[in-house]
Amino acid sequence: MAPVHERARRVGDLPTPALVVDRKALAHNLAVMAEALPGARLRPHVKAHKCTALAREQAALGHRAFTGATPRELLGLAVAGLGDDLLLANETVDAHRLRTLADCGARVTVAVDSVETVDAAADNGIEEVLVDVNVGMPRCGCRPDDAGRVADDARARGLAVRGVMGYEGHAVGIVERERRAAAVEQAMAELRRAHDLVGGDVVSAGGTGTYDLNTTATEIQAGSYPLMDGLYAELDLPFRRALSIVATVISVADAHAVADCGLKALAMDHGNPGIHGADVWFCSDEHVTFAPTTRPVVGDRVVVWPRHVDPTVALHEVIHVADGPGLDAAVVDTWAVDLRGW
Amino acid sequence: MAPVHERARRVGDLPTPALVVDRKALAHNLAVMAEALPGARLRPHVKAHKCTALAREQAALGHRAFTGATPRELLGLAVAGLGDDLLLANETVDAHRLRTLADCGARVTVAVDSVETVDAAADNGIEEVLVDVNVGMPRCGCRPDDAGRVADDARARGLAVRGVMGYEGHAVGIVERERRAAAVEQAMAELRRAHDLVGGDVVSAGGTGTYDLNTTATEIQAGSYPLMDGLYAELDLPFRRALSIVATVISVADAHAVADCGLKALAMDHGNPGIHGADVWFCSDEHVTFAPTTRPVVGDRVVVWPRHVDPTVALHEVIHVADGPGLDAAVVDTWAVDLRGW
Repeated sequence: MAPVHERARRVGDLPTPALVVDRKALAHNLAVMAEALPGARLRPHVKAHKCTALAREQAALGHRAFTGATPRELLGLAVAGLGDDLLLANETVDAHRLRTLADCGARVTVAVDSVETVDAAADNGIEEVLVDVNVGMPRCGCRPDDAGRVADDARARGLAVRGVMGYEGHAVGIVERERRAAAVEQAMAELRRAHDLVGGDVVSAGGTGTYDLNTTATEIQAGSYPLMDGLYAELDLPFRRALSIVATVISVADAHAVADCGLKALAMDHGNPGIHGADVWFCSDEHVTFAPTTRPVVGDRVVVWPRHVDPTVALHEVIHVADGPGLDAAVVDTWAVDLRGW
Repeated sequence: MAPVHERARRVGDLPTPALVVDRKALAHNLAVMAEALPGARLRPHVKAHKCTALAREQAALGHRAFTGATPRELLGLAVAGLGDDLLLANETVDAHRLRTLADCGARVTVAVDSVETVDAAADNGIEEVLVDVNVGMPRCGCRPDDAGRVADDARARGLAVRGVMGYEGHAVGIVERERRAAAVEQAMAELRRAHDLVGGDVVSAGGTGTYDLNTTATEIQAGSYPLMDGLYAELDLPFRRALSIVATVISVADAHAVADCGLKALAMDHGNPGIHGADVWFCSDEHVTFAPTTRPVVGDRVVVWPRHVDPTVALHEVIHVADGPGLDAAVVDTWAVDLRGW
């Protein structure tokens, strides 16, 4: 069967629910970021898009080093020829997956924050690590004052310690810019303290919300900026929302309508999605129920804007590429979401 | 490469995050339901498990008619030889998908609630429909007093109208049994009213939470009962939680620990998952951060209980089958989650 983009000529003809990227908005986002953080100053995080076709666009603009959250993300990048410098910005003690990464032919660096993660890396052929530091968000990472010990453990096991990483995830979503900047500075003071103990050339940190505020990091791990989402759209960022889900109205009642885009097509951890000119009531497995301002007709298409892009993309097999915004835009390509799973 | 269950002999050896079903709890749930609603009294909904291997277990106990929420669920069942009597309990106007269903060789009935959905079914070769009635939850379904008109439209287009369906989704989760029963009765009074106008042999309704309270329906569309989840576990149901996610502790701090099971491994629409003996703080893309009562060691496995099973299963490629509960249970099989997508 022909690819979907050869059967559906416009966004409004796609089978739904359909994940759609506006390639003009995407190109804008990629260009703005590449100008702000050229080349190796950005280490794009692929967890947000899970798509080697999109990673290729980032590489074409000069970002040849990538960040991933799962071994499979890194392996997919390596297979796609994007393995110049891959960082697993996450801890794992999975021997089989670490060994597969070590043998994949790419340059692979993994995050470590404990003797167990150091041992797992060393035991399975990994050669380079970053010491992951907790800079204020209660997730992975050692205490800043413990980073030197972790680095010593790693070097004692023969690992090259390239530097530190520390994600200020508690800061990236703060709407008010000054408060966000203050939270970044506080977090990065912790990371600098750890870096003093660890050494190395790399200080890896940051996200889309802090890409221009974090001046400590030698490289920013932004992931959401190409596609954007409802949460980040509330900030003062120069990136445009490029990813939406096109759905079909399948039922219309007096006060509400229903479209075929539910919990299995978009993530709900950051709350309900948005529909322009409508009040979204709730989502169920395969439905979004909303109160429209103008009563639609069954068969109409609606554009649904997800509040959190990362886990939304992970629910889809493909991203359709549109030549602009709206339902009349031409569908020009279909990209596999080929970095899903672990 | 050998299937995972031949490489991992016990649940605690699985690569994580791993979706695991306890086959003893599953067998209990299937047996209890088959006794309460034998044969065609139950039309299992496959949207909760999206797995033909599990549907085969339901069919082996005598339930040969199935419910699905997407065309792909029905097509997968047809391909698996489970196409005796398939109900798409959802509206669609997708011509290509309706035509594919009409030509798939299975007996296919689709829900209609408007002239547009009737026309789409008739135009694309569908032969049998149920009139979908809104019985109190604002989602799909026509008004009860409009059901006769929809049935007339369908018959005028040459469709056989088998009866009505109406899902009391606003009732299934009510914890207090008497209040739940009252809500079911109110909803089913609406459905009976519609059925009087429509005719036909089938009154299809119900869910796991109302399987024994709904005495109006000729068939119950329960889907969650084989696997269960955190929400349904709060009710007075005789079904056991059979589905969990095994995760690995990858980082341990003074007050919290982190395991590798996040938003891309479990759905959050009904809230945080549970971890026995721990207070779950939050989930991020690939992490659950929790405060344990006993400090774990990096590499320990934890069992994570999702709050909503349906969208959780949709995030996984396989379900591992364990010969009982706990991390020491033998892994005896791996089932593909082969009914994902649309």
